Amino acid sequence: MKKSLGPKTLAYPTPVWVLGSYDKDGRPDVMTFSWGGICCSKPPCVSVSLRQATYTYGNIIERKAFTINIPSEKYAREADYFGMVSGRTIDKFSVTGLTPVKSDLVDAPYVKEFPMVLECKVIKIVEIGLHTQFIGEIIDVKADDSVIGDKDLPDIAKVSPIVFCPEGRTYWRIGGPLGEAFSIGRSFNDVK
Amino acid sequence: MKKSLGPKTLAYPTPVWVLGSYDKDGRPDVMTFSWGGICCSKPPCVSVSLRQATYTYGNIIERKAFTINIPSEKYAREADYFGMVSGRTIDKFSVTGLTPVKSDLVDAPYVKEFPMVLECKVIKIVEIGLHTQFIGEIIDVKADDSVIGDKDLPDIAKVSPIVFCPEGRTYWRIGGPLGEAFSIGRSFNDVK
Repeated sequence: MKKSLGPKTLAYPTPVWVLGSYDKDGRPDVMTFSWGGICCSKPPCVSVSLRQATYTYGNIIERKAFTINIPSEKYAREADYFGMVSGRTIDKFSVTGLTPVKSDLVDAPYVKEFPMVLECKVIKIVEIGLHTQFIGEIIDVKADDSVIGDKDLPDIAKVSPIVFCPEGRTYWRIGGPLGEAFSIGRSFNDVK
Repeated sequence: MKKSLGPKTLAYPTPVWVLGSYDKDGRPDVMTFSWGGICCSKPPCVSVSLRQATYTYGNIIERKAFTINIPSEKYAREADYFGMVSGRTIDKFSVTGLTPVKSDLVDAPYVKEFPMVLECKVIKIVEIGLHTQFIGEIIDVKADDSVIGDKDLPDIAKVSPIVFCPEGRTYWRIGGPLGEAFSIGRSFNDVK
């Protein structure tokens, strides 16, 4: 029996990603967000929803670019901190000791210590409600050599991204492999 | 050192969710997708990106409503199958033996056996490229009594949602808890 929980932003898994941007003076900033996801295959795009009140919102409006940095679980404390304070008054790189690197492809910085980054250019802005959605074309994905696995792709077990539970406000790890996509369901082809 | 992987739809974690819709004749259909995520807090909204070629695309254009069903890992085979075949020619509920339930709030069916469902009404349609993004207002979230945990919220360990790795095309499990959000990063407040 299903219980009604009301109209809530409740969905699992939800990502923990860190947005990198430059402010108008060229100072690198980062903020953590969970409202987003891949949204198109061609061109490859990812969406990010931000409140207008955030410092990052103004940065992205100005620069029309951002990076999405995927923190590994060992940087959960840093990622959590990046979501709690504003870049308007705090230099989050300096406080945490992490290193901003200027992207060679888009006008935004990325976090050197995080294992993966998506470098994006804004191609569309969608007003929804409290949040504004920025759709970014993925110009490149970069990953640390140390997390590259089979097929020359980042191994999720090595990246060890963080999963967020909204409402309950907890972080979770990735577990083990469950199966091959576009494969394990094939057995149903025999049923029909 | 970071290695360039090119412009790819590569981000972790990416969800494995199942979209429920009715076709023009009222026949329930489901399809699996991974391009989406929460996109606004007020009103609570979730986005879903679909190719125009899918059967579900036409259903949603017609009905302006959908459900997002979160399969638990024990339904990974069914979820995989739902992403491989088209509702145009196959009754996916009948083949898998799963049960469509008519939502009492939106004009769409949900999957009885999956532990969580978001019932949504389309409030915006965004053309991006190969994919069209549907933004749905979350009218209600429902969860099985058996997965409800602390704070009357679904326990992610009990829901056991599936994580998708794009490009590598593998499914993964959720692991263990990592920490409290808006809490574990507080120690950096002493640094500044």
